[in-house]
Amino acid sequence: MRYSESIWRGASAMTDGTVKGGAMAGGAVNSGAVAMVETWRGTLPESRHRGHAVICDASGGIVAAWGDPEAIIFPRSSCKMLQALPLVESGAADGLSAEQLALACASHNGAEMHVARVARWLAEMGLAESDLRCGTQVPDDAPERHRLRAAGEAPCQLHNNCSGKHAGFLALNRHLGGGSEYGAIDHPVQTAVRAAFEEMTGAASPGWGIDGCSAPNFATTVHGLALAMARMADPRGLGRAREDAARRLVAAMVAHPELVAGEGRACTELMEAMGGAVAVKTGAEAVFVAILPARGLGVALKIEDGATRASECAIAALLVRLGAAEADDPAVARRLRPPILSRRGFLAGDIRPAEGFWQGGAAI
Amino acid sequence: MRYSESIWRGASAMTDGTVKGGAMAGGAVNSGAVAMVETWRGTLPESRHRGHAVICDASGGIVAAWGDPEAIIFPRSSCKMLQALPLVESGAADGLSAEQLALACASHNGAEMHVARVARWLAEMGLAESDLRCGTQVPDDAPERHRLRAAGEAPCQLHNNCSGKHAGFLALNRHLGGGSEYGAIDHPVQTAVRAAFEEMTGAASPGWGIDGCSAPNFATTVHGLALAMARMADPRGLGRAREDAARRLVAAMVAHPELVAGEGRACTELMEAMGGAVAVKTGAEAVFVAILPARGLGVALKIEDGATRASECAIAALLVRLGAAEADDPAVARRLRPPILSRRGFLAGDIRPAEGFWQGGAAI
Repeated sequence: MRYSESIWRGASAMTDGTVKGGAMAGGAVNSGAVAMVETWRGTLPESRHRGHAVICDASGGIVAAWGDPEAIIFPRSSCKMLQALPLVESGAADGLSAEQLALACASHNGAEMHVARVARWLAEMGLAESDLRCGTQVPDDAPERHRLRAAGEAPCQLHNNCSGKHAGFLALNRHLGGGSEYGAIDHPVQTAVRAAFEEMTGAASPGWGIDGCSAPNFATTVHGLALAMARMADPRGLGRAREDAARRLVAAMVAHPELVAGEGRACTELMEAMGGAVAVKTGAEAVFVAILPARGLGVALKIEDGATRASECAIAALLVRLGAAEADDPAVARRLRPPILSRRGFLAGDIRPAEGFWQGGAAI
Repeated sequence: MRYSESIWRGASAMTDGTVKGGAMAGGAVNSGAVAMVETWRGTLPESRHRGHAVICDASGGIVAAWGDPEAIIFPRSSCKMLQALPLVESGAADGLSAEQLALACASHNGAEMHVARVARWLAEMGLAESDLRCGTQVPDDAPERHRLRAAGEAPCQLHNNCSGKHAGFLALNRHLGGGSEYGAIDHPVQTAVRAAFEEMTGAASPGWGIDGCSAPNFATTVHGLALAMARMADPRGLGRAREDAARRLVAAMVAHPELVAGEGRACTELMEAMGGAVAVKTGAEAVFVAILPARGLGVALKIEDGATRASECAIAALLVRLGAAEADDPAVARRLRPPILSRRGFLAGDIRPAEGFWQGGAAI
């Protein structure tokens, strides 16, 4: 599917990040989130997703923004490559493969290919599944889920979408010599993660919460997260160890997109569609980031309501506007304007970028 | 769980339906939806759901409202009791049981109890599964889903959450003598449904779309949907046939909450918790309605982003404020303030009504 050329050429300038809405009832004022994605049914909009997005360079200079760049968010799994920085720059990852580093940055499906690799990694360290502190998760991967049910097996911690990140935490922990509860907020592993996170985002974290995998997740702003991604894209000046670590992690992600997420997943398919030129990563509650090394740019977005269908549509839209992805590539189109079908297969509507987010659509 | 009494007694008056947000970025203006539900992680809000809600009486008089009462929405499955009115008032439902009428109003889980009853109903009419036009659906009910997989059976149209509504359409169609494609917009069944819908909502529908079950779904305003629910609650003056039909349908819903949704579902558990005094019904894309016969009130709400976690929290909050449900009833608390746990069982945060929606919380 291809969008009208006129949309691309129509407006000559970027919007200022605001969207004028319809009639206001009672003078309601929002907190800066702007309409980014809508679902339509027939000829009417049915639902609307608001959010914040920032595209910036490694100095923090904003190239484009929507909503409130300073909105505080939890990056959730979108920052796994930041959480993996101490693993690599400490030397703890010396000898680790690109596959292992991709898994350290992954929110994987818990498919056999993920589970087996994490199990092998743990074995290489002389550790076992029971050393993980991520908790168990029913795998998203349907074949593995059905295999478990047929075999009467319970899912284990290896199936947790974060098991690769936790294997990375364990590898770092072996290097640091910390205790077994490596997910505790005051554990040396998390102290190192926090330091790297705050250096990359450029500010002290305004707070932290417990992530789904029970590890700390540090809050930042949308702008801070985009800055961190721009620094992953262009790590010059961060010091040799961090520069090398950033380049190695981004290279690992784009070399093994199937390990970063899994079959049919947005991260995997979008990275494959962009041929290794751009790394992308999703996070729970509708965060999405992109790292564009060729342009030295970072992207971060958060849909304020936490809907993944919207964060996937929005990142696809931004990647197209950045010239990094093609709107008619099936992997992109599937996120950018997925049809909504009835259970008999009738076309009922679609999900699409909101007009104010998508228009003003000169290439960025 | 019990909310602070001070919240209940604090503000003396209703809010005017508006919420003041934080700092605005670039003068963004929304279309009237106000913050109704938030998710919190640690000490910070993580995601926010905005929406519209109206509580009104059978004359359309607004008792309380949030957001834009005139926002146009698709009621989706929340209006199934309206779609069932022609079935009953035509006489086509003479001899049907309360269980069958509850199924006609249902978005069921496709459990054995639902599937068997719809199959029997079709057989009583001399019809079969193949006469349905709702399409197939993998049942939400886990035991039935696992049974199908183990038996190597495919789900059928009886498993579609709307199969009871469609059995009702077929019953009406037999009465009207229409063709087999009873879901077509110009079919006598849908003409009758539209007429009843517009009479109950008090206005011509501004548009229609194809619902998940492939039948037409007519748009209305949040106020229009609340008015229709108030008229279901207090159908006096609607004419003898409609009055009887409305009372019979509401009685069927509250008598068989397990057939209206299913095990663990919000509609079922909330109706059970309220002991038959109130009928509630969810609709896709985060619509929820309530019918309060004892007070002659109707409630309708729409979360603009379509998130069910938020519509369930919001309807629970309104039912508590209306004095129809108890905040510390487990079935209510599970929707009103569900904890967010990590996969190791750590308490990471919760989902809760937004302050501006919940406060000003004198009983309505």
